[in-house]
Amino acid sequence: MEFDHAGIATDDVDALATLFGELCGFDVAHEETFDGMRVVFLEVGNGYLELLEPEDGGTIARYLDEHGPGIHHLAFETDDVAGAIERARELDVTPVDEEPRPGAWGHDVAFLHPKDTGGVLVEFVEH
Amino acid sequence: MEFDHAGIATDDVDALATLFGELCGFDVAHEETFDGMRVVFLEVGNGYLELLEPEDGGTIARYLDEHGPGIHHLAFETDDVAGAIERARELDVTPVDEEPRPGAWGHDVAFLHPKDTGGVLVEFVEH
Repeated sequence: MEFDHAGIATDDVDALATLFGELCGFDVAHEETFDGMRVVFLEVGNGYLELLEPEDGGTIARYLDEHGPGIHHLAFETDDVAGAIERARELDVTPVDEEPRPGAWGHDVAFLHPKDTGGVLVEFVEH
Repeated sequence: MEFDHAGIATDDVDALATLFGELCGFDVAHEETFDGMRVVFLEVGNGYLELLEPEDGGTIARYLDEHGPGIHHLAFETDDVAGAIERARELDVTPVDEEPRPGAWGHDVAFLHPKDTGGVLVEFVEH
């Protein structure tokens, strides 16, 4: 596995995309509306930043209410999300997703429960 | 710039290193005691996870008290940390470090204030 992206919860995806563009030179690689969120992927060269802004409630809206804006999750690229979920189960790490599901940008994804991974919300992603 | 590492605050660096090793196949690339912390860098192929465990108070101890364990910061690699700090100032982003300072693993680093970067604690790092 390798680093794929860091997911960032924000209440202003356009302002944050502009800031990271000006600060770090990261360009927009992809944007879409997915699962009630505005999602912008910034190209980081060897991966992405995934900026997430809720449009109407949902997981990210609750996250912003509880924690404020900031780093939400870390995603690692694999060519076998189902196998990675199975490996997690063997290690007594609880999957949030029992099997791979469609994620943003047409990827297959699965999340693990942060209570079992040192407070880090881990995502597996297959392009 | 490119992704360099994600910093993770933990109260058990060894357990978390073992878990990410078994879950994702990440090996230990470097470990040291730095600035009152046990620091372990895990090799992620295209970057690192930097696991941070406080030994005796300090920033990470306070972070754990306030937020619990989890993702602490994102670091981007540059060959000009001083220039990146200057660029931040031009964008009205407040540097935590006014100039590059020695970081873990012998790197030069500087942090920006998360209040100006969407709640994301950003680090610039030069190897």
